[in-house]
Amino acid sequence: MTGTHYDTGNIFAKILRGEIPAHKVYEDETTLAFMDVMPQADGHVLVIPKTAARNLLDIDPALLPGLIAVVQTVAIAARDAFDADGITIMQFNEAPAGQSVFHLHFHIIPRKEGSMLKPHSGGMADGAMLAEQAARIRNALAG
Amino acid sequence: MTGTHYDTGNIFAKILRGEIPAHKVYEDETTLAFMDVMPQADGHVLVIPKTAARNLLDIDPALLPGLIAVVQTVAIAARDAFDADGITIMQFNEAPAGQSVFHLHFHIIPRKEGSMLKPHSGGMADGAMLAEQAARIRNALAG
Repeated sequence: MTGTHYDTGNIFAKILRGEIPAHKVYEDETTLAFMDVMPQADGHVLVIPKTAARNLLDIDPALLPGLIAVVQTVAIAARDAFDADGITIMQFNEAPAGQSVFHLHFHIIPRKEGSMLKPHSGGMADGAMLAEQAARIRNALAG
Repeated sequence: MTGTHYDTGNIFAKILRGEIPAHKVYEDETTLAFMDVMPQADGHVLVIPKTAARNLLDIDPALLPGLIAVVQTVAIAARDAFDADGITIMQFNEAPAGQSVFHLHFHIIPRKEGSMLKPHSGGMADGAMLAEQAARIRNALAG
């Protein structure tokens, strides 16, 4: 019932090709992490594979170890960078499950006690703010 | 700011020790998958490591490849078993992020077009229903 098509015109594919910019926090041969431009909280990062995978249902299992390692590393760095009280991780497969960009991605969202998530459609964040937040997470990764 | 203590009295530790029952769908040397007793949708499965890990922030990275492989395999089986239109995966770290049982777990939730998630506190599901749903997912895994 779920899709299998990979549309190379999706926004994350464009980021991977360098056609549009992103506030990157981590990159290696197989994985990229960057700030979500419609953050649900400060420090909201996306982790994606560089391969063309629609979501977790179709990605080559051989690529998962590298991907989940970066998810864990970035989650810890985001917690430290934002002195977070928790980290919410979400990964949506197909539109009825919440997926809106059809390139596999993990949401990593720092949480504060008593603070609700903003809606994902809450609008584009300020670029300077995202650049500053990306730098904080890069510093935590380097530390 | 986040916890590091592992409480061996948590409910998933009790399931792992066989002190309380669970509707299991998959088990190997390092990983267990079983039905959530407070399901947010039909086919709601939890995947956990057998090791004592509070959440993704403290688990030994060496254990992640085996864990994420089971998450993917069970997600595909749950999709097939419930003819789902999507799969929502959530993984909460610490109470402010939504974690209520402090043993690392991934939620795997089959989704239907137009159907909202039920609240996780929606109450205990009928045991016979969970047994039937577990059997459906085990059949999909075997298929």
